[in-house]
Amino acid sequence: MTKSSVKEGDFVEIIIDEEPYKGIIMPSKQKDIISLKLESGYNLNLKKSKIKSMRYLEKINKISEKKQMVPINKLLPKISILHTGGTIASKVDYKTGAVISKFTPEEILSTYPELRDMANISSRFISNMWSEDMRFSHYNILAKEVQKELKNSPKGIIISHGTDTLHYSSAALAFILQGINIPVIIVGAQRSSDRGSSDAFLNLACAIKFIIKTDLTGIAICMHENENDESCLILSALKSRKLHTSRRDAFKPVNSKPIARINLKGDINMLSNYPKNQNSSLNLKFFKENLKIGILKSHPNIFSKEISQYKGYDGLILEGTGLGHFPISVTDSYTKEHKNIFNELKKLAKNIPVVMTSQTIFGRVNMNVYSSGRELQEIGILGNLNDMTPETAFIKLAWLLSNYSKKEVREMISKNLIGEISERTNKEFEI
Amino acid sequence: MTKSSVKEGDFVEIIIDEEPYKGIIMPSKQKDIISLKLESGYNLNLKKSKIKSMRYLEKINKISEKKQMVPINKLLPKISILHTGGTIASKVDYKTGAVISKFTPEEILSTYPELRDMANISSRFISNMWSEDMRFSHYNILAKEVQKELKNSPKGIIISHGTDTLHYSSAALAFILQGINIPVIIVGAQRSSDRGSSDAFLNLACAIKFIIKTDLTGIAICMHENENDESCLILSALKSRKLHTSRRDAFKPVNSKPIARINLKGDINMLSNYPKNQNSSLNLKFFKENLKIGILKSHPNIFSKEISQYKGYDGLILEGTGLGHFPISVTDSYTKEHKNIFNELKKLAKNIPVVMTSQTIFGRVNMNVYSSGRELQEIGILGNLNDMTPETAFIKLAWLLSNYSKKEVREMISKNLIGEISERTNKEFEI
Repeated sequence: MTKSSVKEGDFVEIIIDEEPYKGIIMPSKQKDIISLKLESGYNLNLKKSKIKSMRYLEKINKISEKKQMVPINKLLPKISILHTGGTIASKVDYKTGAVISKFTPEEILSTYPELRDMANISSRFISNMWSEDMRFSHYNILAKEVQKELKNSPKGIIISHGTDTLHYSSAALAFILQGINIPVIIVGAQRSSDRGSSDAFLNLACAIKFIIKTDLTGIAICMHENENDESCLILSALKSRKLHTSRRDAFKPVNSKPIARINLKGDINMLSNYPKNQNSSLNLKFFKENLKIGILKSHPNIFSKEISQYKGYDGLILEGTGLGHFPISVTDSYTKEHKNIFNELKKLAKNIPVVMTSQTIFGRVNMNVYSSGRELQEIGILGNLNDMTPETAFIKLAWLLSNYSKKEVREMISKNLIGEISERTNKEFEI
Repeated sequence: MTKSSVKEGDFVEIIIDEEPYKGIIMPSKQKDIISLKLESGYNLNLKKSKIKSMRYLEKINKISEKKQMVPINKLLPKISILHTGGTIASKVDYKTGAVISKFTPEEILSTYPELRDMANISSRFISNMWSEDMRFSHYNILAKEVQKELKNSPKGIIISHGTDTLHYSSAALAFILQGINIPVIIVGAQRSSDRGSSDAFLNLACAIKFIIKTDLTGIAICMHENENDESCLILSALKSRKLHTSRRDAFKPVNSKPIARINLKGDINMLSNYPKNQNSSLNLKFFKENLKIGILKSHPNIFSKEISQYKGYDGLILEGTGLGHFPISVTDSYTKEHKNIFNELKKLAKNIPVVMTSQTIFGRVNMNVYSSGRELQEIGILGNLNDMTPETAFIKLAWLLSNYSKKEVREMISKNLIGEISERTNKEFEI
């Protein structure tokens, strides 16, 4: 068996660096690369030149890629799926053994015939990206595609998305698509813990069931509730985060409750309030695509250079420690570097919006409590009393800077606009 | 009442920026600052010039700051407390209403007489720092103080510490103090949710109870298990993290199990394995104090400048997305900036160790699964298959660079040295 004789859809074992990889040959645009879908559903790109040996394990029957007519059931609602790439697409076709790089409604329905009974699904290919590569320009494209899709009057839209930056994208779309009056549910997939069952199906099916039954409008996330393949959570687009590299239930609410729990039967428990904008109008406000916004995490032995290097940027998110601190040591000067850090931070905050978040992820920034927090406020560090994740604060700052004056940005960053900052509870007021 | 007539220990109400603050006047080294201990236990530094009005609420009786002779009970073990600052010190004295800035054994025992029945406690003042200001130099000082304390042959040592960077310090001490043959327990305090009860007492008492009963050697953390004031967890010095800005149970195990659960009665449940180095010898390896190590978090719309600015640094921790990814877009070139990012990362990784961790916090980096991960490995990004928090990886990289050759650092960073990287489970091997 030679490297050139393998065909898409062949199930093979490849030896590279003494390690064997079993999987299905996927289409590859690059001649020197063999793309292998592993049994876990992941894709692996291997340089042909590095392959030591390869052997057939079995031939896989390819599903016809021809368009099959899907009959429309007038009793069922219309749902659109926009495909952006990531693991979820490959998951879906792995289950059938089919090797396809596009994500058409016919193929979904062949893989998961149960979906056909739930809704009239149409699907469009937007991109085939790993989500870590997403930039502000992609958020704009995606929002325009959602807007385009509205012309077909779907009951709701599903966006399939890589999980790495899914929570950044959900926040970005929530800001751009304010006032949208249907649900837009973002769905991803992590690897399955057992080969046969893909978490993509449950995530997709729950998103469909939820869209059919809900009067929620706007963006939300639908992912596994736990490691069982039984229920999903509908999570806030603005207050959620990927909190595990590989588990199916990697997405967790942060400083928020899940919006709903839903299972395959369509049983829904509504768990918290959610937006209902039936009568609002859509007025898209996009991202400026070349904005430079940094994220700087405080850490021991930080040097002032790590702050001054953001000179020339449009904005900076600080990931402070605890309640929102940075090593500025205002009460005693332990080292010269503490003073330098303080001075560089002060200089930067005069020129651009510098916004405090906490690297603890959970909890609220509170720069009123300690002297260092008050000093940070005095030199103009923004974001006091916000409980946004660093990721949502980053997206919000970029979106504000794209659409408002500097003065407005400084006022709006710590105000709750669309649910990104929660109200303080009585318990929090006791601080 | 004038601003200059208030005395340490007075319980007052101060109006500043239209907001009233009630608390006890604390000692302040700066003449223009009034330091107020709020009822929550937090300290607030107020500029005298900004104070609108002030009124006495009551006089507080100060506890004598004179040394009281504490009788030694020969039946009880010796425990040393080293005091570095942070909320825990102020928490302790708030409960009595006493206003003291130092943390002597007499004062602890006056505040919490129950501790006297548990052990013969001696205590030393090392520093009065907020922990966000800690630098590598402070880790070295602290390690030397621990070593000095060993001459008194205590059953164990407690280090009281601010919580902001407690988990960085615990990791640093674990690396410096390898081979120590007594338990060194780091204890902090968050604010109490009700005024009367301080979480400091339970954390200290549980640390004492644990030290008395355990044969664990080395560094560990002792903090509240949950929001009830009933039990503490002993947590790994290397695999734990502050995960809430303000809750008492802010410290959580990450990719690890708690070492033990302990309550006031001294009931211990051992929950996982722990080090017992009874016969080892102490060979301190310190931090180079001026090492420059950065932490760079991947985010959408990142620019290559954010990478190249670490030129001249000694090492860099990447907080990648998902399994350990960065927007290098190796399969297709979506934008020129993706290529720039790839090139700058490649250049940097040639010169200094660049180590991948994940911003998901939980889970293991795995750069074997996707093509981008494999490409990152090919350009020399280190840290594959590690499950360290970014914070522990940062401390480990700094400590390695302080004590080993560049070649050794590259080999040692992904190997488990002292429990900082856990073994892969069978489930993880299924990826």
